[in-house]
Amino acid sequence: MKKYMEVFQGTAFSSKSPKEVQILKDHLFCVNNEGIIEKVVAPADADYQALLAAYEGEESFHRLAEGQYLLPGFVDLHVHAPQWAQSGTALDIPLYDWLNTYTFPIEAKFSDLDFAKTVYNDVVSTLLAHGTTTALYFATVHKEASLLLAEICAKKGQRGLVGKVVMDNPEQTPSYYRDADTQTALADTEEFIVAVKELAKSTKQGVYPVVTPRFIPSCTDDTLKGLGKLAAKYDTHVQSHCSESDWAHGYVKDRFGKHDAFALHDFGLLRDKSVMAHCNFLDDHDAELFAETGTAVAHCPISNAYFANSVIPIAHFHSKDVEIGLGSDISGGFSPSLFDNARQAVISSRMLEDGVNPALPAEDRGVPQSRITINEAFYLATAGGGESLSLPIGRLQENFAWDVQIIDTKTAAAKLPIFEANEDLHDVFQKIMYLVRPENIQEVWVQGEKVHSRQK
Amino acid sequence: MKKYMEVFQGTAFSSKSPKEVQILKDHLFCVNNEGIIEKVVAPADADYQALLAAYEGEESFHRLAEGQYLLPGFVDLHVHAPQWAQSGTALDIPLYDWLNTYTFPIEAKFSDLDFAKTVYNDVVSTLLAHGTTTALYFATVHKEASLLLAEICAKKGQRGLVGKVVMDNPEQTPSYYRDADTQTALADTEEFIVAVKELAKSTKQGVYPVVTPRFIPSCTDDTLKGLGKLAAKYDTHVQSHCSESDWAHGYVKDRFGKHDAFALHDFGLLRDKSVMAHCNFLDDHDAELFAETGTAVAHCPISNAYFANSVIPIAHFHSKDVEIGLGSDISGGFSPSLFDNARQAVISSRMLEDGVNPALPAEDRGVPQSRITINEAFYLATAGGGESLSLPIGRLQENFAWDVQIIDTKTAAAKLPIFEANEDLHDVFQKIMYLVRPENIQEVWVQGEKVHSRQK
Ligand SMILES: [Zn+2]
Ligand SMILES: [Zn+2]
Repeated sequence: MKKYMEVFQGTAFSSKSPKEVQILKDHLFCVNNEGIIEKVVAPADADYQALLAAYEGEESFHRLAEGQYLLPGFVDLHVHAPQWAQSGTALDIPLYDWLNTYTFPIEAKFSDLDFAKTVYNDVVSTLLAHGTTTALYFATVHKEASLLLAEICAKKGQRGLVGKVVMDNPEQTPSYYRDADTQTALADTEEFIVAVKELAKSTKQGVYPVVTPRFIPSCTDDTLKGLGKLAAKYDTHVQSHCSESDWAHGYVKDRFGKHDAFALHDFGLLRDKSVMAHCNFLDDHDAELFAETGTAVAHCPISNAYFANSVIPIAHFHSKDVEIGLGSDISGGFSPSLFDNARQAVISSRMLEDGVNPALPAEDRGVPQSRITINEAFYLATAGGGESLSLPIGRLQENFAWDVQIIDTKTAAAKLPIFEANEDLHDVFQKIMYLVRPENIQEVWVQGEKVHSRQK
Repeated sequence: MKKYMEVFQGTAFSSKSPKEVQILKDHLFCVNNEGIIEKVVAPADADYQALLAAYEGEESFHRLAEGQYLLPGFVDLHVHAPQWAQSGTALDIPLYDWLNTYTFPIEAKFSDLDFAKTVYNDVVSTLLAHGTTTALYFATVHKEASLLLAEICAKKGQRGLVGKVVMDNPEQTPSYYRDADTQTALADTEEFIVAVKELAKSTKQGVYPVVTPRFIPSCTDDTLKGLGKLAAKYDTHVQSHCSESDWAHGYVKDRFGKHDAFALHDFGLLRDKSVMAHCNFLDDHDAELFAETGTAVAHCPISNAYFANSVIPIAHFHSKDVEIGLGSDISGGFSPSLFDNARQAVISSRMLEDGVNPALPAEDRGVPQSRITINEAFYLATAGGGESLSLPIGRLQENFAWDVQIIDTKTAAAKLPIFEANEDLHDVFQKIMYLVRPENIQEVWVQGEKVHSRQK
């Protein structure tokens, strides 16, 4: 009589703390029917051999091949699903112009459910193929298309957190793309929440509705207030953009005489399950408010290089106990890969520390103590994302979901430069983080179900 | 009677100028026996239909499939071939420590020709698979292993420019890894030059010896002087590192009372065929000296984030007519892809323009006018690289070598987000530059020969 649904044997990497990666060499991972890791067993543990004897040879037993490793699935905290259609383009203009010239027109097209279906199917499959097992999505203002995105996540096996975007401020949104008025915006949001909660009942890995004011400039005061109430009424996740660029940060200061963080808090939008994108211009008071309320930062390093006019001081905010995860910000960021974003998170932090202008003396150039390591970037993409969403994901340990990517370092066409049979596993980990391509992601599992695999 | 060895029909992208990309829609590219593009024919040209009729159906005729595009092969101006073995690791320490703790020990291992063969075969194949058709390599101090690298390039069909590294200054190099003395360093270099020139006689795509003082700190004055003379005697390419980091830049100022550029010039090392890596701390006088002598900059944006303490002002140096190309700087840079480096070149330039420290007012944060576009980054990776090496490569036009990558935007497992049949070709180009993975690089050709292909 077998107790577990699946048993995996292999070497895994998982965050022990933001700075430390734990190496679980040749461990057994026992996954129950709910897709939860019920037991992690080390080779030295008493029941290792007995478990091995019981499961080896069974269909439910998976021994990783030589050169294969387990990583937790990635948690992408900021994806504009409709913008996948313009990913990689239009990156040469400032945020305000980018929204009005490119982004609002393309999002408006999602009133067409056929177009929405094509793009949403593609973006969810693409993210899964890149190792992203959980994603926090902005959809568009359209209730039906937003629900379609949730359904596609449910069907493809990705843990999707989806928001119908709210934007009703006529001064900051185009007439062809906005909610009709406050009442409609709130009614549509409430209907959307209810529909997704219904869908969640039949979705093993979970699917979640998210209250989603686009950002303060797009919304009227009444709407922001109403959304805060809906988040409380249904205990939902909340997402928005916060203090992203000089312009966005300045706009809120002009309108409310305070920073985004405090303005959002006034509307009841900073909650334990809130995730705010970017946050480059938080000051220490804002950061403390984030820490107190349990609000998380979605750090989007590639996007920030184009639209945020600065590098967010991640190391400093970590020292203030702010929860932080990683976001691709498709399509402000061009890459659907959190590997790419983890790499850029390290690079950007180095640039913040050293500074950029070679004409300045070294001591005036940067901000000391700003660098993060690749271990910390990995933490942001996995455990930090899980904490940000208050979900048991992002770590390979007991009582966490079996959300994993199986990395093959020996894929014929994309072999990593590992030339020694007994290469130090810390070095293997770093090579994985810096050099893996989607080709190396052999299988992806969410909540104990295989949702992506590559032919050998 | 067919005149051309190969004829390709398809849409190509090639730089017209640093800022402009030319779109050659459905053109014919006629390649002669020497692997040179002899004729480029537009659909409206008089002989288009006759050529098509003559070649269609022949084995020498290649029509690109729908969704496939031609790009020039990339020119990587800075690769430490032996460091491929440690790519992705050891990126957390400053340049000086990195060299002594990790890099010199691994390079010392290349006295073992078996190890050298394994790593060099792998790095050359890997770069070809990433679309790099020409590479300027640092090998190690070992004459035999360096020649082996040149032989591997010759055999695999890559256009390799290879340098035996020279480092003989006992104060700045470890006893286990240096040239024995000036005389040995120069004699080994000369033998290496002669051997590679011999190899070149039987190598269609070309293989070139490169005079390669590691950087000023590693070399004695007599050796630098002797290397300058060898470069003149044999009219070779020259490569080194120049003004890379605060430490390296400061070292040369202390030793010679001048910047690297002028010190290298004194030794006869700045020539039309010279390529200097990094160059972050060039001032305007240095840049003018580069422009006058035809010396090129190998910009290595990923590496610079870790080791150069700053972002090089590419836009400014372009305005001073300095030749600039792109380098991966494996393994100071972790990625073997010039797509990755082109993306980072744009990102880094944006960070130089906007600055990094959000605590500063916007107007004090960055250096205005520093951004480059993805078009310019493409230029650096292709035409700029060709000009830097004074070779007819990097453009898809007549009298240039047929060095190309065939990009498949519809590869099943790595489809680009192109949802409209008639998507604007400028947008397609940007999506290619920002989103292509090695999987999308369907074929690579060098000098008219196919050197890499992927099974469908
Ligand atoms: Zn966003
Ligand atoms: Zn170098």
